[in-house]
Amino acid sequence: MFQTFDSMNDPFAGSARCAALRQDLARRKLDGFLVPRADAHQGEYVPPSDARLEWLTGFAGSAGIAVVLADEAAIFVDGRYTIQVREQVDTQVFTPMHLTECPPTQWLAKTLKPGARLGYDPTLHTISGTRRLKAACLAAGAELVAVADNAVDAVWEDRPVPPLGAVAVHADALAGEAASDKIARMGAKVGDAGADAFVLTQPDSIAWLFNIRGSDVAHTPLPLSFAILPAKGKPRLFIDGRKLSNAVRDHLVGLAEVEEPVGLVPALAEMGRAGASVMLDPDWTGDALASAVLGAGGTIREGADPITRAKAVKNDAEIAGARAAHLRDGAAYARFLAWFDRAVLDGPLDEIGVAERLEAFRAETGALREISFDSISAAGPNAAICHYRVERKSNRPIPPDSLFLIDSGGQYEDGTTDITRTLAVGSVSDEMKRHFTLVLKGHIAIATARFPVGTTGAQIDALARIDLWRAGLDFDHGTGHGVGSYLSVHEGPQRIAKTGHVALDPGMIVSNEPGYYKADSHGIRIENLELVTGPSEIDGGERPMLGFEALTLAPIDRRLMVKAMLSDEEHAWVDRYHARVLAEIGPLMDDETTEWLRAATAPL
Amino acid sequence: MFQTFDSMNDPFAGSARCAALRQDLARRKLDGFLVPRADAHQGEYVPPSDARLEWLTGFAGSAGIAVVLADEAAIFVDGRYTIQVREQVDTQVFTPMHLTECPPTQWLAKTLKPGARLGYDPTLHTISGTRRLKAACLAAGAELVAVADNAVDAVWEDRPVPPLGAVAVHADALAGEAASDKIARMGAKVGDAGADAFVLTQPDSIAWLFNIRGSDVAHTPLPLSFAILPAKGKPRLFIDGRKLSNAVRDHLVGLAEVEEPVGLVPALAEMGRAGASVMLDPDWTGDALASAVLGAGGTIREGADPITRAKAVKNDAEIAGARAAHLRDGAAYARFLAWFDRAVLDGPLDEIGVAERLEAFRAETGALREISFDSISAAGPNAAICHYRVERKSNRPIPPDSLFLIDSGGQYEDGTTDITRTLAVGSVSDEMKRHFTLVLKGHIAIATARFPVGTTGAQIDALARIDLWRAGLDFDHGTGHGVGSYLSVHEGPQRIAKTGHVALDPGMIVSNEPGYYKADSHGIRIENLELVTGPSEIDGGERPMLGFEALTLAPIDRRLMVKAMLSDEEHAWVDRYHARVLAEIGPLMDDETTEWLRAATAPL
Repeated sequence: MFQTFDSMNDPFAGSARCAALRQDLARRKLDGFLVPRADAHQGEYVPPSDARLEWLTGFAGSAGIAVVLADEAAIFVDGRYTIQVREQVDTQVFTPMHLTECPPTQWLAKTLKPGARLGYDPTLHTISGTRRLKAACLAAGAELVAVADNAVDAVWEDRPVPPLGAVAVHADALAGEAASDKIARMGAKVGDAGADAFVLTQPDSIAWLFNIRGSDVAHTPLPLSFAILPAKGKPRLFIDGRKLSNAVRDHLVGLAEVEEPVGLVPALAEMGRAGASVMLDPDWTGDALASAVLGAGGTIREGADPITRAKAVKNDAEIAGARAAHLRDGAAYARFLAWFDRAVLDGPLDEIGVAERLEAFRAETGALREISFDSISAAGPNAAICHYRVERKSNRPIPPDSLFLIDSGGQYEDGTTDITRTLAVGSVSDEMKRHFTLVLKGHIAIATARFPVGTTGAQIDALARIDLWRAGLDFDHGTGHGVGSYLSVHEGPQRIAKTGHVALDPGMIVSNEPGYYKADSHGIRIENLELVTGPSEIDGGERPMLGFEALTLAPIDRRLMVKAMLSDEEHAWVDRYHARVLAEIGPLMDDETTEWLRAATAPL
Repeated sequence: MFQTFDSMNDPFAGSARCAALRQDLARRKLDGFLVPRADAHQGEYVPPSDARLEWLTGFAGSAGIAVVLADEAAIFVDGRYTIQVREQVDTQVFTPMHLTECPPTQWLAKTLKPGARLGYDPTLHTISGTRRLKAACLAAGAELVAVADNAVDAVWEDRPVPPLGAVAVHADALAGEAASDKIARMGAKVGDAGADAFVLTQPDSIAWLFNIRGSDVAHTPLPLSFAILPAKGKPRLFIDGRKLSNAVRDHLVGLAEVEEPVGLVPALAEMGRAGASVMLDPDWTGDALASAVLGAGGTIREGADPITRAKAVKNDAEIAGARAAHLRDGAAYARFLAWFDRAVLDGPLDEIGVAERLEAFRAETGALREISFDSISAAGPNAAICHYRVERKSNRPIPPDSLFLIDSGGQYEDGTTDITRTLAVGSVSDEMKRHFTLVLKGHIAIATARFPVGTTGAQIDALARIDLWRAGLDFDHGTGHGVGSYLSVHEGPQRIAKTGHVALDPGMIVSNEPGYYKADSHGIRIENLELVTGPSEIDGGERPMLGFEALTLAPIDRRLMVKAMLSDEEHAWVDRYHARVLAEIGPLMDDETTEWLRAATAPL
């Protein structure tokens, strides 16, 4: 099993651990210390060795920061985690604060005493973030002090060792472009931007560039590492050599100078001394790396990681892989759905049991490398919590006459999947069906959208919401996120959200997942992954338009659809999509499942 | 008549005028000079005395800039004017360039010779604009030289004198808030922003703040003037005293120190010397004003004009005024439409004749102060030119079996109107009807939208386009602009467009004007002004939503609607809107027009 259901955190340790940290700070003559959730790569997942925020406070969310001062401490989390933080953290020790409504910089500016020395680990805070922290300290008359050895690590007994996940070569047939070609293409972009080199700190950029995959963090095949990509010539890859087999090392040595991570800062300092213009992404790069260049007299250029956009646009091989992965995943998923419909009648099912069974169906494909994130398996009112993660203590049996929501995905070598279905259990209320159909209308509006080249996700986000808005409803998350190719299931730069100001270019993959959540009652989300296609001509039209092709192939629960609320076009889309699911998934089914699938995909 | 149909411009004068300017530049030891379309207020309309770009080049568009160097000259215009510039300008003298694809800064950076001295009038270029020009000159090794007396003015014989339009007091009953209260409220905002004073350079901000209206430029009741609004205490208003009657002067003297415009720069210098923190909007304020403060040792704070947003949100009196103005305008417009339908059968109508007749109907209300812009009266293929202005030489008779588009508006003391209707002439093609109905669907989508507090125009713009997009069509302008209250018909900061990143707040007025243009054939636009209403509860909903109330009351041509293309909801909206038009406008009609109106508003 890839998914675990245990809670690691322990609110009761917070007090003692915070006291130990304060002792250490006093020894260092620091009046406070910052403990962010981030590691040096600023990614969604961090290895256990970097889970400092969770170790110190108990908080296990994917974003947040604690500030420990001599006589008070606060933990800042965003709107997703305002309930969770109170369950996981000893709030007598750490006062919970809202990350965006009262950001830590604002809190520091008014809380720090003049002359105070606030410590931070410059490898964990980005260049932009450090800039904001410095301004906050300045406003308070305090000082931000870079600390070379993290103060949490100094008091963290039994700290896990950093991961040494094996690296594998990602075959050219799946990647669709040789690493050497990518290196030349991306190096040219660095040169075009007027820099001598770009410092890569995002492991998924490195994985993409060198056609490798790793296993250092949960659910995403990332090789934690750094690299320097010069405008011309051989890149330098800084990665723990113990992660590399001889075969992988041979692959990499042909492409790059392969060095130990400890060599990164000296390498940057050396470039600084040589007067190189070094480009860094200020929003993703640790301040320590900028300091290494600047401290040696070099010049920093700030700019976005050029790989982010290149990686987002999938090539033909990656698109073929995505289709194959979704077909395989869709077949496993249909077997799961058929099982669910039978099993839910037979006896008590619970959230964990369902998540385990789904993972088992995926595993039976023989191709599952990982699940792409912890399944959100949510019964009844639990589904109203958008970012619910089932744990043993929250595990809820599926109640009769309810909605069951499951958001899940698989990592296959040829592609990453992410699908949400909301399922009818027994006889559900008319209100639930009405809510489901409003969400479905939003899903279809995105699925059938055509739009000109250059259109951003922000421009089309409201299409998924307008029917909910007209009914006085909404959902508090984006409509869609980018998805990697056997990489992160959440990948930038494009997204369908009011903040998605990047054009949706052909070849990008993006989720389409409007939802609706009624607190203490039910939650609904319908999610397919969509491939951006076109531009293509339209009959009677003048301008070629982009559009979407649904990659995800799985029935959407017909029992929850109110036909009278669908337009003719929407009705036709449901039937067309279901006919396609049957045609593509049907041949991969056993007889019993085929019968179920026929019924589940029958015309409305 | 407020509208004229003569073309003022004369391409043939460009050569001699450019030569005279070059002689003057040589005398001043300048290698070039910038001639922007803007005056010191950066508004949409400039008085004849500031129409330097038009005088020099013949170009009469509302945006652009010429650069005159010793041996070459270029004129930069945006996409709206690429055809017009070639008709109005001697392109042997001024090379037409695309303002956004090859901006003047980019052109200067590669064209200026090292050591060149490029002159500019710092009253006409904004702080931000000057910053970009300086960077361009720096890149070329050239120097940007501020010129105290404009070089065009030096060679412009018979330059018109600056306007001395009479100022009138805008009654409190119409303004809805006493000027003294506005001054206190806006002064507090200046203080909150941490500044001692804000420099007002936008005449509509000044008109709103002091509850006055002027008559210095065409179509918009602007009093050209400047003001300094302190955080506390009396503002200083810099306005030519000859514009003020004794009564108006009495009104103003109660609110402000009233001074001549020549006093502005010394006043800013004095504030600079006193160490004041002076706030300026860098995108709207002439660089000369910033220099006056900085040169005297003062501090500049950059920030948006606080009045812009306050003015955009109409109060109850302004909303009541807008409704009254639209009712009056709608009645005149219905008479116009009824006349058009009869007259177009009787004999040859042309674009100018129609525009004249419409203005006459509005004038007959006895309340018309001005038209709110030159009517776009466009027959057949002329309507496909989005920003068409009819002139004697382009005037086209309305062909049989065609679409006629007219975009027009009135300035009334209680409100500003702006309406576009597209009318069937004779028997029109199925394609035209299909295009019209697609545009109508976009119009209805905006008109019926509900959206949460905080939603921006950028988020809902695509609702007006999605049906066109699905048909492979689009239009190349925003969906809507803000509208003033007896002020500018184009007013910020809100707009419905992909660039509209300001929230649509209750009380704002915005146009809803999707369109479609088929080159050399026909143009379609359907425009109503909409008031942002709410937030209000929705049956069965959870979140109160904002929405729109159509202010404009005039039939939309039923003969052009393809009923089968409308959803039940769209069909119902058309009937509901028409019933409202009949109920509200009907009682104001004579019998003959009532009969026409009944037919024009009959259920589909």
